[in-house]
Amino acid sequence: MPKNQQSVWAEGTKVFMIEQNLLPFQYQIFESESYAETCRAIKEMITRGAGSIGAAAGFAMMQAAFEAPVNQYTEFIRKAKKEIEATRPTARDLFAATERVFLKAMISKENAAEEAQKIADEIAEAGRKIGIFGNELIHENDKILTHCNAGWLALVENGSALAPVYEAFRRGKNIFVYADETRPRAQGARLTAWELNRAGIEHAIIPDNAAAWYMSKQKINIVIVGADRIAANGDTANKIGTLEKAICAREFGIPFYVAAPSSTFDFECKLGEEITIEERAEEEVLYQTGPDDNNILHKIRVASPGSRAVNPAFDVTPAKYITGFITEKGILKAEELIKLKK
Amino acid sequence: MPKNQQSVWAEGTKVFMIEQNLLPFQYQIFESESYAETCRAIKEMITRGAGSIGAAAGFAMMQAAFEAPVNQYTEFIRKAKKEIEATRPTARDLFAATERVFLKAMISKENAAEEAQKIADEIAEAGRKIGIFGNELIHENDKILTHCNAGWLALVENGSALAPVYEAFRRGKNIFVYADETRPRAQGARLTAWELNRAGIEHAIIPDNAAAWYMSKQKINIVIVGADRIAANGDTANKIGTLEKAICAREFGIPFYVAAPSSTFDFECKLGEEITIEERAEEEVLYQTGPDDNNILHKIRVASPGSRAVNPAFDVTPAKYITGFITEKGILKAEELIKLKK
Repeated sequence: MPKNQQSVWAEGTKVFMIEQNLLPFQYQIFESESYAETCRAIKEMITRGAGSIGAAAGFAMMQAAFEAPVNQYTEFIRKAKKEIEATRPTARDLFAATERVFLKAMISKENAAEEAQKIADEIAEAGRKIGIFGNELIHENDKILTHCNAGWLALVENGSALAPVYEAFRRGKNIFVYADETRPRAQGARLTAWELNRAGIEHAIIPDNAAAWYMSKQKINIVIVGADRIAANGDTANKIGTLEKAICAREFGIPFYVAAPSSTFDFECKLGEEITIEERAEEEVLYQTGPDDNNILHKIRVASPGSRAVNPAFDVTPAKYITGFITEKGILKAEELIKLKK
Repeated sequence: MPKNQQSVWAEGTKVFMIEQNLLPFQYQIFESESYAETCRAIKEMITRGAGSIGAAAGFAMMQAAFEAPVNQYTEFIRKAKKEIEATRPTARDLFAATERVFLKAMISKENAAEEAQKIADEIAEAGRKIGIFGNELIHENDKILTHCNAGWLALVENGSALAPVYEAFRRGKNIFVYADETRPRAQGARLTAWELNRAGIEHAIIPDNAAAWYMSKQKINIVIVGADRIAANGDTANKIGTLEKAICAREFGIPFYVAAPSSTFDFECKLGEEITIEERAEEEVLYQTGPDDNNILHKIRVASPGSRAVNPAFDVTPAKYITGFITEKGILKAEELIKLKK
C-alpha cells in the first residue's frame, strides 16, 4: 500500500503510480505488470518529474530482471535498459537509476529489486532533507514563486521545490505560493495547485506571463524550482520557462533557488549545452483537455486551425542566474557542487 | 461594407466589428445599434487591441450623440463618455477618442460622426505608415517574435506590431514569425496565428515559456510588440508578459521594439507607474473555450478545482528595455518621444 503522499511505488514486481495525466480531475492508480508498460507510463507521463521518473525507471529495470529469460538474461536486461532510457532523454535521475539497478541485476534479480527500492527510498528521503534545509530560506510572510510541479508528485514523496514550502508551512510560517500555470502541460495549474490545495497552503495560479510583473511589484520574495538535470557547472535543465523566470528574478534582485536531490546532478556533463532537450508533440500546445461543468472531459483546440506549434519541454538556465542549490546535503553554490560528487 | 481586413467600422449610426471572441473558430460580424451595446462589446472584448478599441470608442461617442434627447443632450453625452471610458481602463486610444468626439459632439452630432470616422481612418493610416517605417528594421531571413495580437484585428487595419511584418512580406523578404501563445486569452495562438495563416506568412506558435529559450539559441533576431498606453518617458503598458520578453531580449542583446500610433502615447502620464492596470476575471485563467473534433465548442476547466487565480491583463515595461518605438512619424528612441506631442 502506498503512503499518504507517494507518487510511485512497487509491490513485488508490480509497479504502481498515480495517473498524473488525469489529475486534478480524476484520481486513479495506474498498475504496471511489465517493464514495457512502465516504459510507456514514463513516456506518456503517467508519472513525471525527475525523481518520480527515476524511481519508476529503477522499478522498470527490476521488472525487466524478473521478466528476463534465463538463457538470455543479460541481453534482455541490456535491451530493456536502452528502452527505458529512450523514454525521457532529459531526466538525469532516470539514467542514474537504470545504471544502478542494471549493475545489481548482473548479480541477481533479487539484488535488482532491492536496489530499485533503495533508489525510491533515497529520493524520498532526499526530498525530506531538502525540505529541512530549504525551510531556512523561507521567512514569515514570504511569497514564493514556483514553476511547473516539483512537489511530492514529482519526487516520489516530499518534493524538491515544494519540500521547503511544506516544511515552512508545517512549522507554522505564514506563506503564500504563486504557482506558474506552466504551459503547455499546465503542471503548475493542475498539479502544484492540486498539491497546495490538498495541503491547505494559500496560493494562486498565475499565467506564466505574469511572473515578471509580480516580481517588479515586489509581490515575490523568492523563487524555488526543481530540476531535470544539472550539469557539473550548475547549468540546470528544467521545465521550459525556468530560464525566463531566472533571468527576471536576477533583474529584480530576487533569490532564485534550484531544489534537487544529488541524483539529478550529472557530473559527466560539464556544461548545460551538452544536455539533450526533449522536443514534445505540438498537440500539447494546440489542444487542451479538461472537464466541462458536468465533469465530462473534452479535448478542445486552443489555437488557430492551420497553424503549427513548437514545443521544447525544457530549457537550460545558466548557473550565473542561480542563487543556490537546495540538496539533501545542504544548500550549495554552483562552485561548491563538486561536494556532491561521490 | 468593410474592407478586406478591417476590424471595426461604422455605417450611419450602426457600428460593426469582427467578433474576436469567436475567432479563429467562427467568423462573425457583431452589429451594435447603440452606444451601450458598443460599450458592452468593448468590455467583453468583442473588439480588442488599442487601436480597435479607440475606433470603437469614438463610434460609441458618435452613437451617444445621435441617441441623446434634445433637452438633455450634453448631460446624456457626458454620462455616455464616462460609461465608455469605464470599459477598458488601460487603453490610451480609448480616452483619446472619447475626448475628441465629445468635443465635436458639443458642436453637433454630425460633427461627432465626422470626427469618429476621422479617428478610425487616422488609426488605419498610422498602421500603414508603421508598416513602412518598421519594414526597415526587418532583414532577409529574420525570425521575429511577437506577443499577443497587434495585427489588423487590433488596429482597425494594417496593425501595429504586425504591420512591419506584413510590409516586409509584401516586399518579398523571407521571414518567420514566432507567435507567443499569450495566455490567458491566447491572442497569439488564436488571433495572430489566424492573421498570419490567412496572409500566408510562415510562423509557429510557441508557449509563452519558450521565448527566452529561443532567444538564447539565437532563433529570434528581433521582437516587435504593440502597446496599450505609453507614458511620456516611454514606459509601455502592453499585454501581460511583455515585460518578461523585454527583459530577456535585453539579456540576449536582441532589439525590442514597440509599434504604436501616436494616439497610444499619453503625455499627461509621466511615468509607467501612473498607468492603471486592468485586473480581469480569474475565469480567463481557470477555463478555456474551444472546439472539439466535431467543431462543438466546450468550456473546460484547465486548473485544479478549488484553486484561485489572479489575472493582471497588462504589465508595464520600463523604457530602458525598449530599443525604439515604431510610430507613423518614424522610429523614435524614448528620449525623442516628445516629437510626437502635438
